[in-house]
Amino acid sequence: MHDLAKQIAFFEETDKLRGVLRLTRPICADRRENSAEHSWHIALIALVMQDHAPKGVDINRVLKMLLVHDLVEIDVGDIPAYDTHRADEKIEGEAKAAQRLFGMLPADVGKDLHDAWREFEDMQTPDARFANSIDRFHPMMLNDNTEGDTWVARKISRSQVLERAEVMREGCPALHEVVMGYIEKAVSKGHLKPD
Amino acid sequence: MHDLAKQIAFFEETDKLRGVLRLTRPICADRRENSAEHSWHIALIALVMQDHAPKGVDINRVLKMLLVHDLVEIDVGDIPAYDTHRADEKIEGEAKAAQRLFGMLPADVGKDLHDAWREFEDMQTPDARFANSIDRFHPMMLNDNTEGDTWVARKISRSQVLERAEVMREGCPALHEVVMGYIEKAVSKGHLKPD
Repeated sequence: MHDLAKQIAFFEETDKLRGVLRLTRPICADRRENSAEHSWHIALIALVMQDHAPKGVDINRVLKMLLVHDLVEIDVGDIPAYDTHRADEKIEGEAKAAQRLFGMLPADVGKDLHDAWREFEDMQTPDARFANSIDRFHPMMLNDNTEGDTWVARKISRSQVLERAEVMREGCPALHEVVMGYIEKAVSKGHLKPD
Repeated sequence: MHDLAKQIAFFEETDKLRGVLRLTRPICADRRENSAEHSWHIALIALVMQDHAPKGVDINRVLKMLLVHDLVEIDVGDIPAYDTHRADEKIEGEAKAAQRLFGMLPADVGKDLHDAWREFEDMQTPDARFANSIDRFHPMMLNDNTEGDTWVARKISRSQVLERAEVMREGCPALHEVVMGYIEKAVSKGHLKPD
């Protein structure tokens, strides 16, 4: 019998990602989205957007990052992007969670996924910047389709979204342009504070 | 400005996959799972299981299939695997849905994803058999962790699950062995009818 005990335990444990709620609302439903369905959608978006990725981006590495990037939230929950005062808590908690979760797997597979997660977080490579661009684009698209739902509720300002979008300039310029359109529209509708 | 109108419309439309409910229950929550979170989890499982894939399987093509394979359910819903009397309805409805959804994209990207969906459905290649193995394994794992939730509710028998698992023999033998264990356990607990 193949010994897949570790892998199966990891699959059962990562089921919990669908219990992690984000602030954002889906377009199609009046509820908060969970991190599992978010992860699926950004992986699909990456597949479609690969022709707009900067030269040299490896879409397969990007998909790997996007599929594992939120797993750490199983332990620490989703810390909203604009809660910048919680940055230290986020970094420490997530590093510990990564160790626990990827550590459940056979060493080589676990290391491979842990490395992908680390690279995504560090945002120093073209692959990681493209992946982060898509991860950040997704809630902006949802806000654009839900009358600025979380932007309004949390009184977010134009400059805060601009800062989150900054990585797209290099990471995926085509999406950066789309987001600039979202922002101007949201400001004019009063969904984002003009600063 | 990059013209991403088609891509963005596709992203907004595919948001609806999270509104498609499957019969299966997550391990972590007392509710039905949706097809978006299912798609994420099987893509993750494929990543981890790639070392157990038959020689020649291209994991990147597998991921593409798994990320798009359920999109057609946006139009036709999830037709449960054991509703075999609905096979014709499923084939026709899904083919039409694939045409509509992948047809929203620029021709080359749309064709690429449409081809991946078709290959997954036809189950004639090692990639498609590995992808189908994982897609079918997932609800079995959930049933194993929820006291046979949908097996009991729908009075499923051992031979029906064995038939669904048949593709794993070639597609992913390691998972086939795991599932044989699930089945014997479920029969002994009365969660599956012994036939």
